[in-house]
Amino acid sequence: MSDLASKTCVPCRGGTPPLKGEELDDLWRQVPEWEVIEEHHLRKVFRFSNFQEALDFVNKVGELAEEQGHHPDMSFGWGYAEITVFIHNKTGITESDFIFAAKTNTLL
Amino acid sequence: MSDLASKTCVPCRGGTPPLKGEELDDLWRQVPEWEVIEEHHLRKVFRFSNFQEALDFVNKVGELAEEQGHHPDMSFGWGYAEITVFIHNKTGITESDFIFAAKTNTLL
Repeated sequence: MSDLASKTCVPCRGGTPPLKGEELDDLWRQVPEWEVIEEHHLRKVFRFSNFQEALDFVNKVGELAEEQGHHPDMSFGWGYAEITVFIHNKTGITESDFIFAAKTNTLL
Repeated sequence: MSDLASKTCVPCRGGTPPLKGEELDDLWRQVPEWEVIEEHHLRKVFRFSNFQEALDFVNKVGELAEEQGHHPDMSFGWGYAEITVFIHNKTGITESDFIFAAKTNTLL
């Protein structure tokens, strides 16, 4: 398990400044298969061989979301699940988003 | 339960012609809260009061999908789930899409 994946998401305080530049890149290198979109959210598409496997994965991510108090958006259907991680006050990406992404990788 | 909801989705044969015009409108009147998008797919957004309720609903729709052999695309997150129903050969909307939409309505 990566260092990131062993951490715990923390609730985003209103004043938490979003990660930018080098600081963001350092964390991204730990989960490079996730796309960083406009320094605002993280996204990854997972592929599966049928619908049920995608649904099962979505449930694991859902359980993690409730456990961590960090709720992604998910799109899924036959053979795929796209997970988008972001803080809901829309200011940008925080370490907790990267932690959630790293934990999601371990669910496969 | 509506007439539509009591029917069973049938596998789409390659040659099934998509519904158009009056025929499509007749079925749509039975599930008018679903959007018909470009005579191609049906879409509805369901609202919930938290993440878990949205996930629970997505699971019910997933169970229906496996039972009916008719698999929608779903997007969901905190407080919402958007269900998109279409046949995967992309030719257009069939009666089975409307049946699936009507059955989805009964899951709430």
